[in-house]
Amino acid sequence: MVEELIYRRLLDWLAEDVPFWDATSRLIPEGCRCRAVFLAKERGVAACVEEVAAFLRWLGFAVRQRVASGEEFGEGSVLMEVEGAMRKLLQVERLVLNLLSHACGVATATRRALERARRANPRVRVAATRKTLPGLRYFEKRAVEAGGGDPHRLSLSDMVLIKDNHLRYFGSVRAAVEAARRAASFAVKVEVEVSSPEEALEAALAGADVVMLDNLTPEQVRRAVELLERAGLRERVVVEVSGGVTLDNIEEYARAGPDVISMGWITHSAKAVDISLEVVEVIKP
Amino acid sequence: MVEELIYRRLLDWLAEDVPFWDATSRLIPEGCRCRAVFLAKERGVAACVEEVAAFLRWLGFAVRQRVASGEEFGEGSVLMEVEGAMRKLLQVERLVLNLLSHACGVATATRRALERARRANPRVRVAATRKTLPGLRYFEKRAVEAGGGDPHRLSLSDMVLIKDNHLRYFGSVRAAVEAARRAASFAVKVEVEVSSPEEALEAALAGADVVMLDNLTPEQVRRAVELLERAGLRERVVVEVSGGVTLDNIEEYARAGPDVISMGWITHSAKAVDISLEVVEVIKP
Amino acid sequence: MVEELIYRRLLDWLAEDVPFWDATSRLIPEGCRCRAVFLAKERGVAACVEEVAAFLRWLGFAVRQRVASGEEFGEGSVLMEVEGAMRKLLQVERLVLNLLSHACGVATATRRALERARRANPRVRVAATRKTLPGLRYFEKRAVEAGGGDPHRLSLSDMVLIKDNHLRYFGSVRAAVEAARRAASFAVKVEVEVSSPEEALEAALAGADVVMLDNLTPEQVRRAVELLERAGLRERVVVEVSGGVTLDNIEEYARAGPDVISMGWITHSAKAVDISLEVVEVIKP
Amino acid sequence: MVEELIYRRLLDWLAEDVPFWDATSRLIPEGCRCRAVFLAKERGVAACVEEVAAFLRWLGFAVRQRVASGEEFGEGSVLMEVEGAMRKLLQVERLVLNLLSHACGVATATRRALERARRANPRVRVAATRKTLPGLRYFEKRAVEAGGGDPHRLSLSDMVLIKDNHLRYFGSVRAAVEAARRAASFAVKVEVEVSSPEEALEAALAGADVVMLDNLTPEQVRRAVELLERAGLRERVVVEVSGGVTLDNIEEYARAGPDVISMGWITHSAKAVDISLEVVEVIKP
Amino acid sequence: MVEELIYRRLLDWLAEDVPFWDATSRLIPEGCRCRAVFLAKERGVAACVEEVAAFLRWLGFAVRQRVASGEEFGEGSVLMEVEGAMRKLLQVERLVLNLLSHACGVATATRRALERARRANPRVRVAATRKTLPGLRYFEKRAVEAGGGDPHRLSLSDMVLIKDNHLRYFGSVRAAVEAARRAASFAVKVEVEVSSPEEALEAALAGADVVMLDNLTPEQVRRAVELLERAGLRERVVVEVSGGVTLDNIEEYARAGPDVISMGWITHSAKAVDISLEVVEVIKP
Amino acid sequence: MVEELIYRRLLDWLAEDVPFWDATSRLIPEGCRCRAVFLAKERGVAACVEEVAAFLRWLGFAVRQRVASGEEFGEGSVLMEVEGAMRKLLQVERLVLNLLSHACGVATATRRALERARRANPRVRVAATRKTLPGLRYFEKRAVEAGGGDPHRLSLSDMVLIKDNHLRYFGSVRAAVEAARRAASFAVKVEVEVSSPEEALEAALAGADVVMLDNLTPEQVRRAVELLERAGLRERVVVEVSGGVTLDNIEEYARAGPDVISMGWITHSAKAVDISLEVVEVIKP
Repeated sequence: MVEELIYRRLLDWLAEDVPFWDATSRLIPEGCRCRAVFLAKERGVAACVEEVAAFLRWLGFAVRQRVASGEEFGEGSVLMEVEGAMRKLLQVERLVLNLLSHACGVATATRRALERARRANPRVRVAATRKTLPGLRYFEKRAVEAGGGDPHRLSLSDMVLIKDNHLRYFGSVRAAVEAARRAASFAVKVEVEVSSPEEALEAALAGADVVMLDNLTPEQVRRAVELLERAGLRERVVVEVSGGVTLDNIEEYARAGPDVISMGWITHSAKAVDISLEVVEVIKP
Repeated sequence: MVEELIYRRLLDWLAEDVPFWDATSRLIPEGCRCRAVFLAKERGVAACVEEVAAFLRWLGFAVRQRVASGEEFGEGSVLMEVEGAMRKLLQVERLVLNLLSHACGVATATRRALERARRANPRVRVAATRKTLPGLRYFEKRAVEAGGGDPHRLSLSDMVLIKDNHLRYFGSVRAAVEAARRAASFAVKVEVEVSSPEEALEAALAGADVVMLDNLTPEQVRRAVELLERAGLRERVVVEVSGGVTLDNIEEYARAGPDVISMGWITHSAKAVDISLEVVEVIKP
Repeated sequence: MVEELIYRRLLDWLAEDVPFWDATSRLIPEGCRCRAVFLAKERGVAACVEEVAAFLRWLGFAVRQRVASGEEFGEGSVLMEVEGAMRKLLQVERLVLNLLSHACGVATATRRALERARRANPRVRVAATRKTLPGLRYFEKRAVEAGGGDPHRLSLSDMVLIKDNHLRYFGSVRAAVEAARRAASFAVKVEVEVSSPEEALEAALAGADVVMLDNLTPEQVRRAVELLERAGLRERVVVEVSGGVTLDNIEEYARAGPDVISMGWITHSAKAVDISLEVVEVIKP
Repeated sequence: MVEELIYRRLLDWLAEDVPFWDATSRLIPEGCRCRAVFLAKERGVAACVEEVAAFLRWLGFAVRQRVASGEEFGEGSVLMEVEGAMRKLLQVERLVLNLLSHACGVATATRRALERARRANPRVRVAATRKTLPGLRYFEKRAVEAGGGDPHRLSLSDMVLIKDNHLRYFGSVRAAVEAARRAASFAVKVEVEVSSPEEALEAALAGADVVMLDNLTPEQVRRAVELLERAGLRERVVVEVSGGVTLDNIEEYARAGPDVISMGWITHSAKAVDISLEVVEVIKP
Repeated sequence: MVEELIYRRLLDWLAEDVPFWDATSRLIPEGCRCRAVFLAKERGVAACVEEVAAFLRWLGFAVRQRVASGEEFGEGSVLMEVEGAMRKLLQVERLVLNLLSHACGVATATRRALERARRANPRVRVAATRKTLPGLRYFEKRAVEAGGGDPHRLSLSDMVLIKDNHLRYFGSVRAAVEAARRAASFAVKVEVEVSSPEEALEAALAGADVVMLDNLTPEQVRRAVELLERAGLRERVVVEVSGGVTLDNIEEYARAGPDVISMGWITHSAKAVDISLEVVEVIKP
Repeated sequence: MVEELIYRRLLDWLAEDVPFWDATSRLIPEGCRCRAVFLAKERGVAACVEEVAAFLRWLGFAVRQRVASGEEFGEGSVLMEVEGAMRKLLQVERLVLNLLSHACGVATATRRALERARRANPRVRVAATRKTLPGLRYFEKRAVEAGGGDPHRLSLSDMVLIKDNHLRYFGSVRAAVEAARRAASFAVKVEVEVSSPEEALEAALAGADVVMLDNLTPEQVRRAVELLERAGLRERVVVEVSGGVTLDNIEEYARAGPDVISMGWITHSAKAVDISLEVVEVIKP
C-alpha cells in the first residue's frame, strides 16, 4: 500500500484514541522534546516496523529503525529509537504500541508454526486465513509475511473459495467447481473446501486449482495426496490443509504432504508481544 | 453508541473484505434464501451479540437472538438464528464472525479473571486498559463490560492518567499531580502511576483521585493500602493495580486489597472463541 | 458488493452534484409526486440497472425494472418506470443517468466486440483491463460482465501481472516470472506481458499461469500458440492478447487461437448510450 | 480547488486500485529508483497535467512538466518526466494514466468542436453540460476549459436551469421563469430550456438570463435569434444551443448566431488519448 | 439537499458528541420509551425544523411537527412532539437542540433585520454572506431563507465576487471586472466590491452584474444609485450594500435605494434561541 | 489533538466553501504571491491562533504569529502575518477568518464572564457546556480555555451527568445517583442536576462527585452550600451553578460560593470578533 494511505489509516485510528485532546500529555509544554526507545520486553519476530517508522517520520519525528520486519529480536532489544516533540510522542505512543505488539505477535506465531512445519516438510507453506480482526487485514497479512507465512487471499474479491456453506447450495463439490469455472474470470483461482480424500479427487477432476482439506486427520490428508498422485493430478492442484491444526500436530500434518497449511489462530488469537516505549531523555526547551 | 453509527463502522469493515464483490457467493442466485445459525464450537461468554444482530437486521435479515451479551454459553450453543438472502449472508459471514469471536474472547477472558479475583475479594473490579486493537475500542470495551469488567477510561480525552513517561518530565509524582490538578477540568479524574507504596501515599496527598500501582508485588500493594489507610486517605483515593497480573496471581493481588485490577491481555491477547455460521436450510427461489 | 455499500458510493456522487441544494427543483413543492420512465434513445446492452433501481428504491421511489442487465434493448425501450417525489427525482436524475448511460455504453461496446470475436472463435473471452475511469471500477467491471465479457483482475492486489515496465527491472521474462513464483501467494495467478512468440514460450516454461501477448500481429499470436502447443504447455497456460485490437481486426486475432482478448477501449472510450428520464405524469398534492 | 483537496481525491482513487498492496510491484526492492516519461502515443490537447504533476510531487517524485494544460501535443510527445521510487511509481502509474488520458480526451474533443464552431462564428462558446462521469466533474470541467470550452454550471446548486421535466410541473415557460425569479437568489442566473423560437421569446420576456434552445434545427435557432433581436432583447439574454449538435453540424449551428453551444459528448463520450508511462532508466540501489 | 445526505451530516456530528457511548443515558434500559416536546423558552422564527424532524424519524422516532420553518413562534410554543426510545432520544437531544437553537437564532435575526429594512423599502432584500460557521453553511443559509432573507452565493464556486484583496492585484475595478468577464463562464454572475459611488459606476460600465457598496454611508449609497440611474445602468446592475449595517441603521440604508443589504452578523453572531427538550411521559417497558 | 487531525478537519471545511474552484481567485495567476496581515477590527481575547497558523504553514504559507491564544489584543492589532501564494490565500481566507472570529468571540465572552465572577470569588471557575455548534466542539472548548474557562466534559462519553430528563426515569436524585455509582466506571465522575438546596444534599449523600444547581437563585445556591457544609460534605463534592446566569448577575452567583459557574451562551451565542485579512503587498511573478 502506498505509504500515504497507511498514514491516513493510522490517523483514523489515532482519532479513536484522541477524540478531543490528550488530557495528560497536554500538561507537557509544546516545545519540550525527548528521546525514546521502543523496547521489547520479550523475544519475538518483528512486523510492521517500517510502517510505524514511516508514520512517525511523517508526524515529524526522527526515527532510527534498528530491527527490520521479519527479523527475530530478543528480550531487551531496541526496535526503534525516536526523537521529537514529547507531548506528541506520548499522544501517539499507545496506538503505535498496540499496532506493533499485535503485528509482532502475529509474526511470531506464524514463525513458530512455520519452524515446526518445516522440520517435517521443508517446502510446506504456512498460510493465514480471512479470520483477521476487522480493519486490520492489511497489517495482519503483512505480519504473516514477516513471520515467513503466505498471506493467502486478501479479500472476497480476489479468489473463488467454495466453502461448506456454499456447497449446501450446490449439492456437490463437482457442481460447485464447475459453476465456478464457468462464471469466474480466468484471472482468479478456484479453490474448494472438501471433507474427504474422495472429494479432493472429485474437486481436482472438476478443475479446482486448490483443494482445501478441511478438518481431515493427517492420515486422511496423506490419503488425499495419494489419490491425487495416482490420478496424475498432484502437479495440477495445490493441496491446502485447514482446520484443527495446532502447534502440537502441525508436524504430523506437514509430513502428510500438503502444499499449504492454513491457520486462523495466527491472526485472531496471537498473543501480543510485550513492547513498550521508554523515554530515555527529556530535552526541555 | 447510536446503532446507526455502529452500522456505519461495520459497513466500513465490510468494504475491507469486499473491495469489489464476493467472487464466490455471487455464484449463488440473488433470489436464493437460507436459514442459518451462529454456533459456538466451545464455551464462553457472549459479547456484542446485540450489535451484530442489529446490523444483520439493518442489512435485511430476520434475526432471532438466543443468547444475550454477558451470558455464559456452552459448546454447541446457538447464539443467533438468522434468515435471509443467502448470497448476502455468506458475504457478511466472515466479518460478523471475526467480530463476534473476538468480542466473546475478550468477554470470556475478563470473566475468568474476574471470577478468580472475586474469590479473594468480592468487591474488587477487573478493568481494561487502552491496550486495545486499533479501531476496535468500542467493541472491546463493550466486551469487557459483558464479561463483568470495568471499561476504565475510553480515550486519552476523558481522564488524566500520568504514566512513567510523563513523570520523566515532571520529576516527581507530587509535581505531576499538582500540575494536573491546576490544569485539568473539574470534570475529569486525575490518576497517576506509581512504583512504590511511598509514591502511592505521595500521590494521594497531592490530590490524585486514583493511584495506579504499577508492577508492584502483592506485598507492596498491601503495604500501599496500609499507608493510605493510616493517613486516612483510603476512602478518598481509588487504588488500581496494574502490570504483571495473570490468571495465576490475580487472587493474590485481589487479596491485597486494591479497588481495581487492570489487565491489558484481556483485550490485546484474548483467544478468540470458536464460533461458526452453519447454513441449516437452503430455500431456492 | 453489498447494496448498502453501493448506496453509499452513489450518495457520495450525489453530493458532488448537489453541494448545497438543487436551485431549480426546489421550486417544485415537497409534496408533488410524479411518474417517469427511463427511456433509451438508441439501442444498446443494459448494465447496472439493478444497482440504480435499488438505489432509487432506497431513496424512497417505487421502481419497476423492465430490462435486466445483460439484455439488449432497442431504441425507444423503457428501462425502468419510477414513481415518487418529483423534487427528489429531478435532483438525482442526472447522476443516475450519467452512471446508467456510461455503464450501458461499456456493456454495448463489450457485446459488439464479443460478437465479432466469437464469429471466428466461439470459445474466446473478451476481457477488460484496469484502464477504467477513477472511482468507477466496480461499475465498469460489472458492465463488462453484462456485455458478456470477462472482468479480468479487479485491482493491483489480486493478481501478479508483470508488465514491460516491471521487466525493465528484472531484465528477462524468465527472471521476472521466477521471482514472482517465489514471492507470490499460492492464491494468486502470475501473468506476464511478452513481446514475441519466443518470450511467450519462455514465460510458460518459467511457470507463468497466463501470458499476455502485447501488441503482436495475429500471425505472431498464432505462432506463439503453436510454440506452446509443441512444448506441451498449451493446456497449462492461458493465452491473452492485448494491444492494438479493434472491432476491425478482432476476428483475425480471435482466429489466431488465444483464450482471451483484452481491450482498454471498452471501458475508457466507450460511447455513452443515450438514455433520458421522461416525466410522464405530474401528481400535484 | 486547493491542491491538498486534489491529493485527497486522488488518494481515494488510488485506494480503489490498491485495496491491499500491488502484488507485482512489490517484487521490486524498496530502494530501487527509476526515470520515466509520460509519452503521448497520439496527438491531442493536454489537460490536468498540473494536477497530476503536483500529485506525483506530493508523493515524493521529482517531476518535470513539459506540456501545459491547454497546449496541443503531437504523437510521440513527452508530457512529463518523472524520477523516483520505482515500486511506488508503478503502483500509481495506472491511476494517473487513466485520469490523464481521459482528461486529455475531453480537452481534445472540446478543442475540435471549438475549432469548427469558430470557423463559422468566432465569438461562439462551446460549453460542457452536467453529463459528466460520477466523481470526475472537477477534472472534466477543468479539461473542458483546457480545450478552450466554457465549463457551464458546475452543480445543481449554482444556477437555476429549468428543463423539460420541470416545465411539466409549471405548465409554461413563463410560469416557470417567473417562479424562479421570485424564489431564486439575486446571485444566480436563471436559464430555461425551450423547444421553439416562440418559447425563446416568451422566456426572455419573462426575465430569463439564458435561454437554451433544445433540439432545434439551425434554421429554428436563427429564427429565435431574430425574434429576440426584434424584441430588443438579444443583448439581455444569452442564447444557448443544445441537443443534437455534432462535429458535422456544429458549424451550421454556430452560423445561426447563438452565444453558446453545449455538448454532452465532449465529457461523457470523449475518446481517451493514448498516453503511456515508459521507464527509461532503472537505478538499482 | 437530498435528506439522506443530511442524515449523514447529522450522524457525523452525533459521533462528535458520542465518541463511544452516552455514559448517562445508558443507565436507562433499552426498552424504555418516552414522549417529549421541543419547547421554545422564548419567541423566535423557526428554521431547520423539517431537517431535524426528518432526522429523528430516520432514527426511529415518531415525530409530529407543530411549527414550520419560517413561522414565528411565541414563548412556550411546542415546535415538535416526539416519541420513541428514551435512551436514544436523550443521546441525540443535545445535538438536535444545538442545531435547532442556532438555526432559529439565525432566522430570527434575519427576520428582525428584514422587518426594519422593509419599513423603508418594501422591495429590498436582506442577504447573508459567506461568514458562516465552518461546516454549517447549508443549515445557516436555509435559516436565512426561513427568516425571509436571500442566501446570496453558497460557495466560492458559484459566483465571481471581486473583493478588496483581489483588487489589490488588478489595480482597478475596471481591470478586474473585464478580466472576470473574459475568464468566467456565462453561467455565473460577476460581482465587484467598490468603495465609492464613482467606482460603482465604473463597475457597471465594465459589465458587472452586481456592485457591492462596501462600507459606504447611506448618503454615498444614494449617490451611487443616482449615478447608475443617470447612466441608464440602474436596471442592468444589482446594487448590494454591505459593511457596517446594523439593526439601528438598516432603515436608513434601505431608504437609500439598494436592491440588497447583506449582513454577516445574522449568521456569525446570531443569538441562539432558547429551546429545550422536555420529557413529558416515561413509558417503562 | 494531533495537528494532522486538525488539518484534516479544516480541509473538510474548506471543501464546503470550494466544492469545485474559487471562481474569483483563479483570475489571479498561480505564480503571484502576497503578504497579508490578520487584523483585529476590535479588541478581544485570542483563541485558536496556533491551530490556524499551523494549518496555514501546512498549506505552504510562511506565518509569523504575533498574538498567542489567551492574550488580549486591542483594536488594530495584527494577530498574524502571512506570506505566500495569493490565489491560494484568498481561497482559504474566509474559512480561516470564520473560525478565528468565532473562537476569539468565545474566548472573549468567557474572559469577560470570568473577570466579573472573580471580582466576587477569586477561586470560582467559569465553565462551558455541551451547547456547542455542531462540529466545532474541539475549537470552542479550546477557545473557552483560552478565555480562562474550564472546558467541562467534552462529550457524552467522558462523564455521567444526570439531567432533569434522566431524573424523570429514575424518580429521585438519590435513585439516579446510586444507579450511576453502580454502573459507571471508577474512571468517570458522576454529576447530577438538582433543583433545590435539599436535592443538592441528597445528591451528595448518595455519592455524587458534582452537583449542578440548575436555575436556582443566588440565595438558594448559598443555602445549598451551607447544607453541604453542615453535613461535612462540602469538600467531597464540587458545586456547579448553571442556568440563568448572565454577565449582570454572575457576580451575585459567584459570591454565593459555588466552585463552578457554567454558561451555554459563551459558546452558542458569543458575538464573533471582527477580524479581517488585509493584503499589504502583491508580489507579481
